[in-house]
Parts: sequence; structure tokens; C-alpha cells
Amino acid sequence: MNPLIQTNRYFSALFADAEVSGAFDTARTFDHFLAFEIALTQGLAESGAVEADKAQGAIDKMRGFRPDLEAIEAACPVDGLAVPEFVRQLKAHVGADLLQAVHIGGTSQDLIDTATVLTLKEVNAVLAARLDELVTGLERLIDEHGENTMMGRTRMQAALPIPVSHRLQSWIAPLRRHQERLSRLRPELEVLQFGGATGDRSANGAHAPRIGAVMSDQLGLSDPGQAWHNDRDRFADYAGWLSLVSGSLGKIGQDICLMSQQGIDELSQSGGGSSSAMAHKQNPIKAELLITLARYNAGQVAVMHNAMVHEQERSGVAWTLEWMVLPVMVCATGKALLTAQQQLEDITGIGTPARTG
Amino acid sequence: MNPLIQTNRYFSALFADAEVSGAFDTARTFDHFLAFEIALTQGLAESGAVEADKAQGAIDKMRGFRPDLEAIEAACPVDGLAVPEFVRQLKAHVGADLLQAVHIGGTSQDLIDTATVLTLKEVNAVLAARLDELVTGLERLIDEHGENTMMGRTRMQAALPIPVSHRLQSWIAPLRRHQERLSRLRPELEVLQFGGATGDRSANGAHAPRIGAVMSDQLGLSDPGQAWHNDRDRFADYAGWLSLVSGSLGKIGQDICLMSQQGIDELSQSGGGSSSAMAHKQNPIKAELLITLARYNAGQVAVMHNAMVHEQERSGVAWTLEWMVLPVMVCATGKALLTAQQQLEDITGIGTPARTG
Amino acid sequence: MNPLIQTNRYFSALFADAEVSGAFDTARTFDHFLAFEIALTQGLAESGAVEADKAQGAIDKMRGFRPDLEAIEAACPVDGLAVPEFVRQLKAHVGADLLQAVHIGGTSQDLIDTATVLTLKEVNAVLAARLDELVTGLERLIDEHGENTMMGRTRMQAALPIPVSHRLQSWIAPLRRHQERLSRLRPELEVLQFGGATGDRSANGAHAPRIGAVMSDQLGLSDPGQAWHNDRDRFADYAGWLSLVSGSLGKIGQDICLMSQQGIDELSQSGGGSSSAMAHKQNPIKAELLITLARYNAGQVAVMHNAMVHEQERSGVAWTLEWMVLPVMVCATGKALLTAQQQLEDITGIGTPARTG
Amino acid sequence: MNPLIQTNRYFSALFADAEVSGAFDTARTFDHFLAFEIALTQGLAESGAVEADKAQGAIDKMRGFRPDLEAIEAACPVDGLAVPEFVRQLKAHVGADLLQAVHIGGTSQDLIDTATVLTLKEVNAVLAARLDELVTGLERLIDEHGENTMMGRTRMQAALPIPVSHRLQSWIAPLRRHQERLSRLRPELEVLQFGGATGDRSANGAHAPRIGAVMSDQLGLSDPGQAWHNDRDRFADYAGWLSLVSGSLGKIGQDICLMSQQGIDELSQSGGGSSSAMAHKQNPIKAELLITLARYNAGQVAVMHNAMVHEQERSGVAWTLEWMVLPVMVCATGKALLTAQQQLEDITGIGTPARTG
Repeated sequence: MNPLIQTNRYFSALFADAEVSGAFDTARTFDHFLAFEIALTQGLAESGAVEADKAQGAIDKMRGFRPDLEAIEAACPVDGLAVPEFVRQLKAHVGADLLQAVHIGGTSQDLIDTATVLTLKEVNAVLAARLDELVTGLERLIDEHGENTMMGRTRMQAALPIPVSHRLQSWIAPLRRHQERLSRLRPELEVLQFGGATGDRSANGAHAPRIGAVMSDQLGLSDPGQAWHNDRDRFADYAGWLSLVSGSLGKIGQDICLMSQQGIDELSQSGGGSSSAMAHKQNPIKAELLITLARYNAGQVAVMHNAMVHEQERSGVAWTLEWMVLPVMVCATGKALLTAQQQLEDITGIGTPARTG
Repeated sequence: MNPLIQTNRYFSALFADAEVSGAFDTARTFDHFLAFEIALTQGLAESGAVEADKAQGAIDKMRGFRPDLEAIEAACPVDGLAVPEFVRQLKAHVGADLLQAVHIGGTSQDLIDTATVLTLKEVNAVLAARLDELVTGLERLIDEHGENTMMGRTRMQAALPIPVSHRLQSWIAPLRRHQERLSRLRPELEVLQFGGATGDRSANGAHAPRIGAVMSDQLGLSDPGQAWHNDRDRFADYAGWLSLVSGSLGKIGQDICLMSQQGIDELSQSGGGSSSAMAHKQNPIKAELLITLARYNAGQVAVMHNAMVHEQERSGVAWTLEWMVLPVMVCATGKALLTAQQQLEDITGIGTPARTG
Repeated sequence: MNPLIQTNRYFSALFADAEVSGAFDTARTFDHFLAFEIALTQGLAESGAVEADKAQGAIDKMRGFRPDLEAIEAACPVDGLAVPEFVRQLKAHVGADLLQAVHIGGTSQDLIDTATVLTLKEVNAVLAARLDELVTGLERLIDEHGENTMMGRTRMQAALPIPVSHRLQSWIAPLRRHQERLSRLRPELEVLQFGGATGDRSANGAHAPRIGAVMSDQLGLSDPGQAWHNDRDRFADYAGWLSLVSGSLGKIGQDICLMSQQGIDELSQSGGGSSSAMAHKQNPIKAELLITLARYNAGQVAVMHNAMVHEQERSGVAWTLEWMVLPVMVCATGKALLTAQQQLEDITGIGTPARTG
Repeated sequence: MNPLIQTNRYFSALFADAEVSGAFDTARTFDHFLAFEIALTQGLAESGAVEADKAQGAIDKMRGFRPDLEAIEAACPVDGLAVPEFVRQLKAHVGADLLQAVHIGGTSQDLIDTATVLTLKEVNAVLAARLDELVTGLERLIDEHGENTMMGRTRMQAALPIPVSHRLQSWIAPLRRHQERLSRLRPELEVLQFGGATGDRSANGAHAPRIGAVMSDQLGLSDPGQAWHNDRDRFADYAGWLSLVSGSLGKIGQDICLMSQQGIDELSQSGGGSSSAMAHKQNPIKAELLITLARYNAGQVAVMHNAMVHEQERSGVAWTLEWMVLPVMVCATGKALLTAQQQLEDITGIGTPARTG
């Protein structure tokens, strides 16, 4: 149904990989919704807002809940999001006598944002690992080829010879900064969303702080102490990080394309793409894709920043805009990291031995 | 596999509709590829480049061809696109003795771009019809409510009373211009892509003009006489049109959100979205979605303009970037038109009768 | 005061030229404001809304009016725009007894938008002439070098030899389409803005159509018959055209940068930029600048499309956003056209004679 | 000459303020260039690369150097930047016998980037102070009005009453995060650029580390130990921060516009803008401007991310693109902070006393 995937099925393999895109899977999203609701009920119990056995009864029921996805899909265009029908089904499943222990003080945005954060937490571990591996791969490349010589080029013109290591250091340096940036970002990003209808946690009164603490503990997040329904700087900042990463990989891709030109011949590689018209060609499709993903994300980060202009306690407009953009950016960055790693492995030579230079 | 759809299955229903997104379906894309190849073989025959019975034999074979999608999907990450494997399969299916009548003078980009254009041609008919219907719907709304009075508002402040028709005229006027713009755009956009390896049609020598004429005739397109592999202004301009349309609908959505506020009460409607926390709320989710789609497309048009910086005879970078963006924009505009139509139908009142004003 | 110019004085010469940026000069903007007011008074007279001699008296006075720019500058941060203070001064200059013939049924947006349109009309003539000249320059280049041979390159890889004319035709073709697009755009764009406080021309009642006709006639614009205060598709569409032009020139710049690489050596030129560190270098700064301006405009077009989401009868937000973006885009496109022309003149050779190929 | 300022002189006061834009002043930029050259000569001396008295002689000369701005402006369109002519003049001023102590191992980009960083360092102190003051202003607003009650609104619909403090807390919270983000950003951003022709500091051989240490110490920056000519993540990340700040202020502006509507009446203020047509109106121009600046910067951040795709050792394209965008973004954020502060001061009431609620 989605235009991007429908256009051409093979796009899926160009712009995303299963490990990262799988984290956004519908079923897992609903798992996160359910985890939120169970954590909330747990919090209601531990805070004393609801009797412990009522809460336990509700949790037992919830553990066995499987949403009717067709019904949710049908309700979506009416409600504008999946949660109201999900909660209707969940409540029907739990049964009327335990309703006082379910979804008390929660709202759609609490579920959706917390589910997104749980997804991003999973994804961040993957991205961090890929980034580490890429830095290692580049260090290996420096070991292998760094002492060779190549022409340094400025403004697309031959300047003066440089050691290959100089070029490669300029590829690694920003990646190391991205590693540090992610480390700093994660605690700020991986936080519980919990505020209720207007974001002030008022439905749970004095119990709210304890409920937030229990929930965040259960979900492996931290509790910022207040809702951030309408403060979207965390997501915009994270989108910026995603695009910084793909941007730095785009620079690597751009360099590799330029180094691989006939007549320049600074880099040799295996594994190029084939042409339907010219059997002799080896297209640098991985390097090209790195640039494509960089420019894609660069454009999307503007949309995420526009989504910060969030009206009042909740903007359907700005919030929905994030849904269109953030998951695709995450996948693009994940794919760029993977592609860069594969690209490095394809490289068989860079520059020329310094002696013969 | 695609992140956007995977995130939450219900997104498909928010950001695209089946009629438009269906036009980008994988199977139909491959139908277009095949139609291109058959038209090319026809052109080879009619131009005299290939013997007629050889061509007919090849066409007969091609008509029965069904691509192996799994194999194409597997080849894609290597080749960077679907065509090389598609052509390999097609040639194998046709058989070695007829190969001189297949894909002669064609290249991957010819197939992909022509398939995109064929898709856009279908879609444009749908968008044009929706736009017409929307204008009609707005005219009806003027008939019903236009003589009522409402407060004219400038810079978010009450200015002076205006007739409701004045507000609604400002909603219609740009849509009429978009109708005209589409009429002017279509002949420029709906053109054959045919250039071969480097875009100069040199593989077919003096036969090329006749081949182009036959192909475009068969495919229901016009022949610009030369390839536009690396001249992407048509697509960037078209993306602009898509975003102009969604932008004008976003303005309507913004107005409806503002008119529907409690305390403003200038517009009443049925069919709002429900809330998981507050049973009394009627959320203007259609109007909000119009703004979301407008801001989404506004961001994407920048990416399409960046894709105009297309290196040499073919940029894998810029071309691939279009694939990520253009289909989603088309679907967003299609969905915006549909949503606007549904939004109009929800409206039960605008302004107050002028007498009581 | 403006950051762009203040940053480094030399930027002015990189990103704009005096002929185009001069059209946006403050003094000329106020001339346009005054022309609007005089035309309005003329319209009031010819429509019979105001006595002819009163009108003539007011016009005589207005002809001698010189605004106090310091006072306007001081009032601007308070009013958010220049018109209220301008009109205050103008009315004081004309005198109380003729006030019934001044600014009747006009509003700030009428003056500002009409002044912008008058500026764009001037600028469009310049841009059209530069575009024509550029096409001519490219035709001359084809005459001189078109029969030479060069390597056709796809996905940054050597594909097959092409005639130089093939590459150059891909440079001209979109420019010819931009010429046609501008011809179609101009009548739609170069229209009077006249609507009064809420855009409905109600202050002038039945006289309004005649007033609009007289004004548009005097100002050399056409009268769309209604205000377009809140319908900004004309400006967004025009911004798209500006970016289409700079995008096509960016493609030329990109090609020239690639052709000028040592080791590729497909294009020779004089007039490159010097380096502070390497005396031997000739930097292709004109070609680079073309790409810079293309990417700049590509980003800005998104902002202009976002400015279409225009609340109610007038959005201070969206309107002000246009002021930040559109003039700079116009100047960037104007500069790109000029730079492209100078770049062509620098070219001394392309490709190699076909005989020796 | 600059289009933005030329358009209308009053724009300068809307989109920038003298304190911030003054930091980008041409003369101060050249002061930074000179400071770089003096620090470099100092480093050459202290590292032993140049005799101390030669260096001191050159420094004494340089202290009296005043660049000929006209000549620089004239050379700029040819060289593409101001440094070559600046260095020519500087060398001529110092005289031939001391040339071995001037600009050795430096290049244009070292001067321009270091000058930009020095400017940003000044500006960051201003922005940090404004941000602090704004947080204080919001705390005061909470003290004054926080216990009042207002309607919480989600998806533009009345939801449930909230304390005014809840809304205001959502305004402060992201600003506090921006304070922390800036603290983390500054050490990463405020670094010396020093790499020479190809960025590898090779011209100074083993002296380079000591020279970098002396220079950074003199200039009040830190030395990252290597050049970052082609690694632009610092600037892209900083641009993101600028847009995060203006985005959060845009959210405040949006809320104030909505709260100030007649019929909503949640916020009263003095100091609105006047209308040329309606004397009774008080336009919320400060709040509107905050949204305008937010959307402007949101668009620009995409351009800065695109500028990360930086070819080889130096991209004239991407680097020049930064010059067009970053200074204007800085000024827009500075102006937004100032405008927000003034907006807060205009507020005379928010919500209604809780008792009467």
C-alpha cells in the first residue's frame, strides 16, 4: 500500500535493510503499545492508585491480547491514528470489571511516542554497532593503503600529492564525532512519554511521579518527569544526527565516485553494478547510493525541524508529519552505514605505492 | 520491507490511497518495462532495422514473459536497479536466435523513466478528475453557505466581516490555476525516454527517429526527439506542481482547523476523529492531514530540485534520489485531493446567516 | 545590517549582480508603493468614487512625496512592515482635505505585493534576456566544438564516445523549456494585488472592478479581478521556475567541473580563480558557483512552498517568510545566468577532434 | 548590493539585530584574517620554523596592515573568495624580505573557516546570554500567571482545563535542553582551522603540531590536531542547533498567535503592530515573526546538511553554500531570541484566575 515500496519492490533493498526496518514492523509497534499499557497498570498498582490484584488481573489478561489489525486499519482513516481502536479492543479484551486498571491517565500520544522511542532504542544499538564496525573498517583500510600516495584535490583540481591516510582520516574523523554525539543523544532521547490527555499527568494526581518511575523502569527508559507531547526537539535533534551520519557517508561516497573515474584511477574495487547496455561497465552503485541517501536525509531534516512548530498541547499536523519522515530517515541511515561497510570491503586498492610516486 | 509502511500498517491509509499507489505497483511497473521492450521491437521492425518476422517472433515471445521477481529483487542491491536482471530474463525467455530484435539501442534508464512516465500518465488522469471534483464540491459549498457572514481575519486577528463566499473563493481560485497548469504540464511530461547507453540514440543510427516515433505512438506518449536522461527539469517541475496542489489544500486545511476551534465556531462538521482519552472530542483529522501532506511535499520538492544536478550522461545519485521521492509525493497529493473532498462533505455549516449578522 | 552582505562584503559580487539586485532597491520599492497609491487615486477618480479634481490634487501632491526612510525603518520592528508609516507620511504630505482620495480601499499587502510584482516584472525581462543570450552562447559553442568527440559517461564511469554536441544539447534543451515556461508564467504572475483590508475590495463597493482595471492599466499589470492576498501559488510556482533555471545551470556547472579535472581533460578554459597557497592552480570557480546557486535555490523552493499554508485572509507568518526568500532566489538565478554566460566565454576547447579520436 | 537588504531596508530590522549581525561585519572578518596570520607567524617563530626576529618584524608590520577593500571586492568574482587578494596585499605590505614568515603553510580556507569560528565564538556568547535571559523571563511569567487556568487544547480542539504553568513549562523545557546542547557544542565547534593547501599541514612538517598549539592558544580556540577542511559536520550540527532554538521559539510564537485570537482570548498583550487599513487592530507581529524565523531556519538546515557532501580535500561548491546560509541562520536565531524576549515583556495576562475558573 505504501507508495515507496509499491513503486518497485526492489526499492526496499536499496533504501532500507531488514534489521532496521524490521524494528518499525507493525506487529512490534503494537507489542510496544501493549508493553506501555502493562507498564502503566503496573505503575498504577505500585503507586497505590489501583489495587494490586485488580492490576495483576488486568496485566494477566493483557499479556494474552492480540489486536485485530484489520479493524485497526479500518478505524485509522477515521481516527487519524491507530490507538483509539487499539485501546477499545484492549479494554474489551480485559473486560469491564478491570477497566479501572487500564489506560488510566494514558492517551494516544503516550503510546505512539513511547513505542517510537522503544523502537529507536533498539535501532540505536544497531546503528552504534554499525558505526563502530565502519570505523574499524576504515582503520583497517588505513593500515593497508594509508602509506600510498595520491593526488590531493581541491576545488576539483589537482593540488599537491598527499598520503592516502590523509584522505582516509578525513573520512574517519567525523564518524568518531558521530559516535560521541550518539552517546550524548541517547539518554536525552530514550525517555518515556507519559502525560495523559493534555500532557500534565493530572489524571493520576499525586500518584503520577511514582507511576512514571515504575513505567520507565519497566520499559528500560528514563522518566523526564513531564510529558513532551508538544516539545519535539528530541526528535528533530535526533533526525539531525541521522543526517549528519548519512552526510559524512555521502562525502565518502562522493570521493569514491571521483576516485573511480577512468583517467583518475585512484581507487580500484570489485563488486560494481552491471549495465543492461554495456557489459564492460562496473558501476559504483554503492558509492552513489551513499550520496543519494545523504541528500535524501538532508532534505528530510528540514521537514522534522518544521514539525517543531507544534500547536498547543498536541498538533495532529506536526506529529503526523514526523511519522512520514523519521522512520524513513532511520532506515536510510541504517542502510547507508551498511552500504558504506560493504563499499569498504569492495575496495582493492587506493593510491600508488609511495616509492614509485 | 519499506520503512514507511512497516512502521505502522495504518500509515498506508493516511498517506496514500489504493487507486494512486496502485499505479506504482511492482507488477505494473514490470508491465510498463515489457510494453517498452515490445514497442522498441516494433520500432526496430517498422524502421527496417530488424526483419519484420524476427521482430514479430520476438514480440510473440515477449507477450508471454513473466519476470521472476525474486531473482530481480536479489540482483537489485548488486546492480542498483531492476533492469539488468529483467533484461537478462527477458532475453533468455525470447531465446538466442531472436536476440537481435530485443533491447537494441535501449538501456536501463529508458525502461525506468518511460515506465515512470506511463505511471504518471495514468495518475495524472486520476489527479485531474479529483481536482475537477474538488472544484465542483467547493462551488456547491459556495452555493450552500456563500451568502453567510463570517469574520475576516488577518494576521490571526479579527479584521472585518466578510461573506463566506469570499473565503471560499480564495480556496477555489488556486485550484483552477492548478487545473490549467496540469493541462500545460502534461504534454511536456508525458514523453518517451529513449536514448540508449549514452542517450544519443546512436546504436540505432538513422533508424532512430522512426523507432522513436513508432514507440511513442504505441505507448501513447509523445517523442521529444532526443533523450532526457540527464535533463530532469520535467520531473522537478512536475514535483513542484504536486506540491502546489497539496500546498493549496494545506491552506484550506489550516483554515478549517482555525474555523473549527471552540470560541471561534465558524465551521461545523461531522466525522471527526476520536480520542483514546476524551470521548467528547471530535478531532479535525482530515483538515490536519491536509496541512501535514502540504508540509511533507514542500520539503520533498527541494530534494527533487537537488536531483537536477545530474552529472554527465547519467547520474546514479540524482536518478535514485527521484525514486525515493517522486512516487511518495504523487501519492501524498492524491491522498490530499481525496481527503479534501471528504473534508468538504463533512462540513455542515459555515458562518452565520447574513440577516442575523 | 543584513547578515548576508555584512558577513563579507565580497559576497555581494558572488551571489547577486547589481542589475537584478538593484531592482529590489529600497528606493525603488518605495517608488512602486507610490505608483500604487497614484494609480489607486486615479482609479478612484475614473470610477467616480472620488471627484476628479480632488483626485488630481492628491496625485499632484503625491508626485512630490519623498518618504522619510529613517522614520520608516524605526517603525518597522513595531508594525512588522513598512507600509503603515509610509501611508502615515504620505497622508500627512497630501494633507487632510484630500485624504478622501488617498489609500481608500487599499491595504499594506496591496502595496507590498504589487511592488514585488512590479519588481519581478522588471527582473523577468532581464532574466529572459540572459536566458536567450545563454542559449545563443551554447549554440555558438556547438558550432565551434560540437563535432569533436568526448567520452560519454554514465554513473561516473566511461561508457562510450559521444559527439560533444550531444553533451551540449543536453545543456540547451532544458533552457529552451525554461524560456517557454517563463512565457507562460509571466501573464499569471504579473498581476495587480488589490483587495483592501480583508481582500474582498468591499471598501470600494461597485466601483471596485473599474478601479482595478484603471490601476492595472496604469501599472502595466493585468487585473485578476480579485485579491490573492492568501493564495500564494503564483509566487511558489515562480520560485520553482527560478530553481529550475538554476538547477539546469547547476548541471552544466557540475559537468564542467568534472570535465576540467586533470586526468579527464575534456574541457579547457581560461579565467579560473587563483589560490592563496598554490600559484599553479586555476580553480573552476564559475562552474562551482553554478552548483552552489542551484543547491541554494533548491533548498529555498521548499520554504516558498511552505509559505503557501497561509492562514485565513492574511498570514503575517507566511507572507514575511516570502520576503526572506524570494528576492534572494531571484538574485541567485540572475547571478547564475550571468555566471553561466561568463563561464561559456572562458571555454577554449571541448573534446578532441573527431578525426584523431 | 545584497538582495535581502536591498529589497527593503526595513528587512534588516526584522531578520537580524546589530549585535549579532555586526559580528559578521566585513571589517571584523578581515580583523580575524589578520589575527590568523599573526598567530601563524607567532607559531612559526615559537616552533622554530622561522627566526624569532624575522617573525617579530613581520608581526609588527602586519599589526599596521589595513586591507584595500575595493581591490578585494574587485578580485572576488575572479578568485571566488577574498583571501588571495588579501594575502597579496598583506605580503606586499610586509615586504619581500620578511615573506618567509608570512602565510607559510596557510591557505584560504584556513583563514575563512577560522574567521567564521571566531565570529561564531563571539556570537555564541551572545546567544547563550539571550537564551538564559529568556528562560529567566519565562520563569517570571510562570510566577506571575502560572496558577491561572486555561483550556488545554489538542489537535486544535478544546480538551480539558490546564494550569497556565503547564503550557509555560512546555515552552521552557526545550530551551533548557538547548542551553545544555550549546554547552556541549561549543568545545567541538570553536576550533582552529589550520591545514594548508591540502589540509595535511605538510608544509610545516614536524613544526606543525607546535604551530597549531600556539595559534589556537593565541586565538582562544582549541586545536583539533588536524584540519577539517572537508569535514563539515561541526557546522551542520551547529546549524541544527540554531534551528532547534528557533523551532522552539516558533512553537511559542504559534501558541501566542492562537491564544491571542478574538474568541479565544487566553492571552492579552500590548505592543502589537498597526495596520494601514484598520486602526483598531493590534497585530501579534512578534509572535508571527518567531514562526517565520523558525520555518526559515528549518529550510536552511537542509542546505547546510547538503553542504556536507564535500568533494575531496576542498569543495568550492559546498563551502560557498555554507557562506550563503550559515550567517543568515545565526542572525535569524539571534533575532528570534531577542524577539521572544520582547514578546514576553508585552504579555499582560494569560488565562483566568483559577478561583473563577
